[in-house]
Amino acid sequence: MALIVQKYGGTSMGTTDRIKNVARRVKHWHENGHKIVVVVSAMSGETNRLIALAHEISASPDLREYDQMVSTGEQVSIALLAMALKEIGVDAKSMTGGQVAIRTDDSHTKARIQHIDDSQLRQALDAGVVVIVAGFQGVDDNGDINTLGRGGSDTTGVALAAALNADECQIYTDVDGVYTTDPRVTPKAKKLDRITFEEMLEMASLGSKVLQIRSVEFAGKYQVPLRVLSSFDENVDGKFDDNFKQNVGTLITTDNGDSMEQPIISSIAFTRDEAKITIRDVPDRPGIASAILTPISDANIEVDMIIQNLSTEGLTDFTFTVNRGDYQKALDILNEHVNEIGGSKVIGQDKVVKVSLVGVGMRSHAGVASKMFQVLAENHINIEMVSTSEIKVSVIVQEQYLEKAVKALHTAFGLDRKDGESKVAGL
Amino acid sequence: MALIVQKYGGTSMGTTDRIKNVARRVKHWHENGHKIVVVVSAMSGETNRLIALAHEISASPDLREYDQMVSTGEQVSIALLAMALKEIGVDAKSMTGGQVAIRTDDSHTKARIQHIDDSQLRQALDAGVVVIVAGFQGVDDNGDINTLGRGGSDTTGVALAAALNADECQIYTDVDGVYTTDPRVTPKAKKLDRITFEEMLEMASLGSKVLQIRSVEFAGKYQVPLRVLSSFDENVDGKFDDNFKQNVGTLITTDNGDSMEQPIISSIAFTRDEAKITIRDVPDRPGIASAILTPISDANIEVDMIIQNLSTEGLTDFTFTVNRGDYQKALDILNEHVNEIGGSKVIGQDKVVKVSLVGVGMRSHAGVASKMFQVLAENHINIEMVSTSEIKVSVIVQEQYLEKAVKALHTAFGLDRKDGESKVAGL
Repeated sequence: MALIVQKYGGTSMGTTDRIKNVARRVKHWHENGHKIVVVVSAMSGETNRLIALAHEISASPDLREYDQMVSTGEQVSIALLAMALKEIGVDAKSMTGGQVAIRTDDSHTKARIQHIDDSQLRQALDAGVVVIVAGFQGVDDNGDINTLGRGGSDTTGVALAAALNADECQIYTDVDGVYTTDPRVTPKAKKLDRITFEEMLEMASLGSKVLQIRSVEFAGKYQVPLRVLSSFDENVDGKFDDNFKQNVGTLITTDNGDSMEQPIISSIAFTRDEAKITIRDVPDRPGIASAILTPISDANIEVDMIIQNLSTEGLTDFTFTVNRGDYQKALDILNEHVNEIGGSKVIGQDKVVKVSLVGVGMRSHAGVASKMFQVLAENHINIEMVSTSEIKVSVIVQEQYLEKAVKALHTAFGLDRKDGESKVAGL
Repeated sequence: MALIVQKYGGTSMGTTDRIKNVARRVKHWHENGHKIVVVVSAMSGETNRLIALAHEISASPDLREYDQMVSTGEQVSIALLAMALKEIGVDAKSMTGGQVAIRTDDSHTKARIQHIDDSQLRQALDAGVVVIVAGFQGVDDNGDINTLGRGGSDTTGVALAAALNADECQIYTDVDGVYTTDPRVTPKAKKLDRITFEEMLEMASLGSKVLQIRSVEFAGKYQVPLRVLSSFDENVDGKFDDNFKQNVGTLITTDNGDSMEQPIISSIAFTRDEAKITIRDVPDRPGIASAILTPISDANIEVDMIIQNLSTEGLTDFTFTVNRGDYQKALDILNEHVNEIGGSKVIGQDKVVKVSLVGVGMRSHAGVASKMFQVLAENHINIEMVSTSEIKVSVIVQEQYLEKAVKALHTAFGLDRKDGESKVAGL
C-alpha cells in the first residue's frame, strides 16, 4: 500500500465527462489499497474566463481580490470531482487550500508555500477517504487567499507529496510520459521509463514543456519521486496493480535507475524559434559584454547563448541568441547603440534552431561533444554556435537541418526505439 | 454618520458594468461619511450554471460538495466589487463567509446562521474600509462551507446588520420600494414610505415578492430597520445626503411612523393563481378535516384557505384553496377518496383569485371587513370565500373581477396616489 499524490490539470478536468473519467481512475488506485490525495486545477478555460471578468473591471486589478476570485476555479473542480467519486461509491472529500491548511506568504499571484498542515489530510486518509485538494492556492497569516501563479497546481502536488512523505507524486497530463525527443520529429523516439531531475530541468528549459520547471526543482529539492503520465490513456486496468512503478509514464527521480548500462545521453531537446545576432569588431575590453547586453535586457529581451570569439588586433565578434519573436527589436536596439559600443556593424540570422543533447551520463563519459560534432559533420550540417554545461551540449544550426540533425543524433547516441520497446502514444 | 449594511442581488451584480454602478453607489454613501458593509449575491445566472455542472455529475450531488461549489459564485462577485471600488479610489476589502467568520450549523444547502464574529468587520470599518461580504454562506465548526439556501443573501445582510447593530439594512432590488398594490393593476398605486414587519410578512406571503420572507422575519426579530430600494435608480445624488431615511425606497420597521393619522390599511395584495375545491355533504364529525387534507398534503400540495360551512343534518360542505398548478392533481386525489371520506361529490373552480387587505391599523379599527364586503357588493363582485387574521382580510373572487376589485378597494380605503406624492417608477 502506497501513499500517492495525483495531480490532474485543467484539460483532464475540462468537462464533467472528463471529471467522471478522472474519478474512475482515482477509484481504481483507491480500490488497489492505496491512500490517495488528488490535486486538481480549474476546468480548462475557467481561469481565463475569470481573468477576463477582472479585466473588464480594471486594467490592473487589486491582487488580493484577484486571488480571492481566481482561486474559485479550483474550488469548483475539487467539489465536482468529490461529487463524482461519491457518485461511484468512493468516500471522498474536497478541501480548499485554506481548509487543508496550505500556508503561503502574502505575495499575491506568485505566492510561495511556507508550510502545510498535514493533520486533517492524514486523518481523512487513515479513514480511507480520498482527499481532493485545490491546486494553485493557499492562505497567508491573515487568512487571505494567495495563488501560486500559473501552473502552480503541479507545485501544490509536489508540496503535498513532500509534506506527506508520499511514495510518489503523479502528474497526469495529455502526454503519456517524457520522450527521448519529440516523436513528431522522429518516429523512433521512445518513451523514457526514468529520467533524473537534472535532466528533466535541462529538457524543460529547452522546450519539452511537459512539466512546470518550478515543480521539478521543488521535487528534486525534497526528493519526491515524480511521475508523468497520461490522463487520457483509457487502459487503466492491469497496468498499475503490482509494479506500477516500473511500467507507467516516466518516473523522474534522483538517480537514473539500477541498471549497470546507462545511456550516456537520455534525450535530445530542441528549440525552433531561435535567432542569432552578431556585432562585429567590437573593442575587446572589460565591460564590453555589459555595454552590449544591458540595452537588450532593459527592453525585457531574454538572451540565451552568448559567445565571444578570440580577439584579433584588439577587436572581437560578439554573438548571442534571442527568441525569434524578439529578433527585430534586438537588432534595432543594437543598431542604435553600435556606434557608442564601438562595433563596425550588426549582422543577424533569424532562421536558426538549437539542438541539445541532455544526459547525466556525460559526467563520466568524455567525448560526447566531439561525437556530436562528428555526426553533424557527416551529415553536412554546419554548427554556428556551441554551448556546453555539465549534462548538456547545445548547438545552433540552420533551421532547415533541424529534423536531419535530431534524427541522426537520435540514432548515433543509441536512443532509437527497438521492436518491443515502449511505443509512442498519445501525441 | 451611520453604519449601513447594503445588499445587492444577482441582477444588480449581473454584469461588470452593473458591478461598476454598484461601486459608484457605494462610493457615494461612503463619501457621505457612512460606514458601509456590502453583501452581494452571485452574478445572475452563475449559481444556475454551477448547479447545472453538479447535475451533470450526479442527480443528487453530495451536499457538502454542492455547498463548497455554489459558494464560489458569491466569492467571485465580492472580489469583482472590491476591485471596482479600488479602481475608483475607495478602500475596500472582500470577505467570504469563512473569512468574516459567519458561523452556521452544518445543514448543507439550508443552513442557519448561529453566530457572527464582528471583530474583523469592525476593525476594517473603523479604518474607513468598505467591507464586501459574500452573501448566502458561512462555515460550520468543521470549517466546511454551508449555504443558507436560495435568497439567503438577504438573510446574510440582515444578520450582519443585527450583529453590527447597524442603523439600517438596505436591500437593493429591481423595484424602488413596496407599493400599496401592484402598479400594473392600478396606476393609482403609490410607493409606501414605511410599512411594518408584520404587514410586510402578510404581503410577502400573499405574493408581493419583493423580499425573502425569512429575512423579514429575521429583521423583525432583531428589530433591524430594513429598507427596500432600487439599484437601477440612477438618480443617486441629492437624495440620500441628509435625511435619506425619509425619502428613499420603503422602510420596513417595527412601527408605522410617528404620524398621527395612520391609514387603516397599508396595502392590497392579491394572488392570481388560485383554485378552490369543495367536497359536498361530508359527515360533520371529528377528524373529517384531517381525512380530507392528509392525502392532499401527502402529495406535497399546499393548502391555503380552508372553510367549513355550518352543518345541516349532520352533513357539511368542506372547501379549500390550492395553487392553480395543483388543482387537477388535488381534484383527482379527492375523487379517489370521496367514498371513504363519505362526501357526496367533489366540485371545483380554477378561475378564482385572492384579494387581501393588509394593515396593522385593523387592530384598532372595527369594520374593515364589512366595508370591504360593501365595496365589493357595490361593484357587483360576488365573494366566494372569506378568511381573516389580525391584520388581514382575504376574499376569494372570480378571476374576471380581480382588477375591478383591487381598484375599487384601493380608492375606497384611501390609498390612491394624489398629485405630488411619490410616483410609480421602475416597474
